[in-house]
Amino acid sequence: MHRRRFTSLTGTVLVGLALPYRSRAAAFFTPRGRQAPRVDGPRLLRRLQELSRFGRNAAGGIDRVAFSDADIQAREWLKDLMRDAGLQVVTDEAGNLVGRRGGTDTSGPPIVLGSHVDSVPNGGTYDGQVGLMGMLEVATTLDDAGISTRHPLEFVVFTNEEDGKTGSRALAGEVDPSEMSLPTASGYTVGEGLRRVGGDPDHLERARRPPGSIAAFLELHVEQGGVLDAAHIDIGVVEGIVGIERWNVRVLGRANHAGTTPMDQRHDALVAASRFVDAVYRTARDGAGGQVATVGRITVEPGAPNVIPGLAILSLEIRDLTMEGIDSLFEQLSKRAAGIGDDTGTTFSFERFYVSDAAPSDPRIRDAVEASAHELGLSTLRLPSGAGHDAQSMARLGPVGMIFVPSIGGISHSPEERTAPDDIVHGADVLLSTLLTLDAGAIDR
Amino acid sequence: MHRRRFTSLTGTVLVGLALPYRSRAAAFFTPRGRQAPRVDGPRLLRRLQELSRFGRNAAGGIDRVAFSDADIQAREWLKDLMRDAGLQVVTDEAGNLVGRRGGTDTSGPPIVLGSHVDSVPNGGTYDGQVGLMGMLEVATTLDDAGISTRHPLEFVVFTNEEDGKTGSRALAGEVDPSEMSLPTASGYTVGEGLRRVGGDPDHLERARRPPGSIAAFLELHVEQGGVLDAAHIDIGVVEGIVGIERWNVRVLGRANHAGTTPMDQRHDALVAASRFVDAVYRTARDGAGGQVATVGRITVEPGAPNVIPGLAILSLEIRDLTMEGIDSLFEQLSKRAAGIGDDTGTTFSFERFYVSDAAPSDPRIRDAVEASAHELGLSTLRLPSGAGHDAQSMARLGPVGMIFVPSIGGISHSPEERTAPDDIVHGADVLLSTLLTLDAGAIDR
Repeated sequence: MHRRRFTSLTGTVLVGLALPYRSRAAAFFTPRGRQAPRVDGPRLLRRLQELSRFGRNAAGGIDRVAFSDADIQAREWLKDLMRDAGLQVVTDEAGNLVGRRGGTDTSGPPIVLGSHVDSVPNGGTYDGQVGLMGMLEVATTLDDAGISTRHPLEFVVFTNEEDGKTGSRALAGEVDPSEMSLPTASGYTVGEGLRRVGGDPDHLERARRPPGSIAAFLELHVEQGGVLDAAHIDIGVVEGIVGIERWNVRVLGRANHAGTTPMDQRHDALVAASRFVDAVYRTARDGAGGQVATVGRITVEPGAPNVIPGLAILSLEIRDLTMEGIDSLFEQLSKRAAGIGDDTGTTFSFERFYVSDAAPSDPRIRDAVEASAHELGLSTLRLPSGAGHDAQSMARLGPVGMIFVPSIGGISHSPEERTAPDDIVHGADVLLSTLLTLDAGAIDR
Repeated sequence: MHRRRFTSLTGTVLVGLALPYRSRAAAFFTPRGRQAPRVDGPRLLRRLQELSRFGRNAAGGIDRVAFSDADIQAREWLKDLMRDAGLQVVTDEAGNLVGRRGGTDTSGPPIVLGSHVDSVPNGGTYDGQVGLMGMLEVATTLDDAGISTRHPLEFVVFTNEEDGKTGSRALAGEVDPSEMSLPTASGYTVGEGLRRVGGDPDHLERARRPPGSIAAFLELHVEQGGVLDAAHIDIGVVEGIVGIERWNVRVLGRANHAGTTPMDQRHDALVAASRFVDAVYRTARDGAGGQVATVGRITVEPGAPNVIPGLAILSLEIRDLTMEGIDSLFEQLSKRAAGIGDDTGTTFSFERFYVSDAAPSDPRIRDAVEASAHELGLSTLRLPSGAGHDAQSMARLGPVGMIFVPSIGGISHSPEERTAPDDIVHGADVLLSTLLTLDAGAIDR
């Protein structure tokens, strides 16, 4: 079924031939008077609604964890949609569902669009799914409009994004064979799950792609934070996916009797830890840039109301667009900790237990996203992605970019997550337009 | 065995007749040139050493929890010591071991000395035991010296001080029958334990004594804090046993993604709780008086390194010599919490779950302790008892006073607790002298 559907929300449908990506494309006059192709908004929203059948639980949330029956059923439905859009559909060894479309220049690497269909346990209907339906809407729009691109295109549904980004990491050769035996929320191990979705855990290396094998990677996603919503901005131009480092912080004081130890003779590990928590917050907040720092976990020993804590153990997480930014903030916090230790008669020690490298987006793609949004009359804001995404691993294969649409109230990984319908359609329009801009040469500069 | 032993450390032994408590007593010239009776220091220290056999564990600590075999064996040994000191020994329904000695005035209520022989699990050899051996040394010294007192005297070994002050609370009628089924560290319930030590849990009310039934209560104890040791003071004149109130504090913020939520959009329950912890510390420290305030327990939810805490639950404990002092500090902290809540977008709520009334010592007894110490050439400091003691319940029956001797480094409830031998002997000397001063009329004013 190759549907032909032309959409015009605000004016006359023009069929132009001047540029490849505009030939025979649905287009309209933007407020600036320029033409831009548009997706079929109502169809996109309807499909998004249809997708939410898979894994919907009694409480209205989505249980579609990777490798679950709901995941598999949704994938079958997606394959039909992809084939309907004229894509050639294959499942690679990592279980990634790949829809291919040829380009007029057969020699070059493809432009890849990607998203994921799996959810967190009791997730919502937007995370992953807005980007997924957005990219398939782009595929259908291209097909409907008969638009040929210079680059081959790939539309990838990545495997198990939420619990380890297995699919995208396999493309970058980052998956260790030992991961195959890890349990997942589906009840199956990763290896068992990959077989369930048509992958081959014994030959994951065949899914690997070398650096330089993609012309560009583009991903549309809900922000999962509240920046765009609070600022009433339509489109987030993602500067990159932040790096993450995590430490266990031990604060050693001296446990003592809470009744008999005067205030000025205490070595209270929790008082010291508390000053550190506040210093973490203020230092990250007051610094220039978009860095965030969080203490999400704390325990004290012995942990009784009538005993001064002798030991506090807390987590420290820092995220920033560059690893240098993380190092710099950590250095400031280490110094603050030493000062707090001196003041309170306690000692701080730090043990780093997690590192995830930052993945900056490509400046040319940022510019293309921004220009596309502006052409569509949409406001933009450059911001980092504080959450991890498949784009992180794809950055090892070529230039990447991401488009964010607002999450209402910044709520994410919850049945309460929401994105306004207009924003969803805007995001898909910008995705389409950016793809065509890149295809037209923006990425070749 | 009624030993007669006169001790003189610094001068000639005088046998005077001028005052009852000096007649035939061991005494010496103090630096101020006045006479004071003295205990037999080497005997006291030897007995303290002997006591430490009961319940000593492999690691050198003392496991002599109430109702254990070690507790019972130590009680048997104590009965012999008490009888050797001429005391008439009975065990009351609450398991208290009471050694009685008649007075020259048979009509009045007794002056009571008390302490305890039970330990915390893996405790040390000083808590309770210094006071216990001190008071028995006083009994032996009185007996050796043939000193008659005007008041009848009672030397009480209280039951289960460490795990509920069962013995002293029974004397004040404060033990609820439901407590009899509570488990204890001995493996027996309180009721079973009382039977083991010769008590009668079915008739606890018979152990009860009415208000006014004691002329005074005196207790010698190690400080369990580091005030005296740090200030190089010989004797602590206890101003009273502090009142205690405890609250559960809930800090409600909003859990959110630690990567996607900018610092200025957070409602971080742990940041708010941390500011409160520091405010508790600083407010208690900077206020006039000896009040202490402690946050000993904290938990956060959801408690993951990559999630901003949405809820923090902490304990707040305030101790002060007066309940008004506690109320006043709590009011200050409530206001601080409200301010912190406003600043951080969180809300604080407080639920009080424990109250223990303050028990001030009697001013006449404080003066007597102080005067006795000064007569012995010892330095004194007035200070509250931050820990609970049997004197707390005894205060319901009549005027109470306590004498503290220094705990080295303030360590308590630990095999590491220590008090210097000289300080132990000084404490017993002051206990003896204070007893005789009260008996001579100081308490009748």
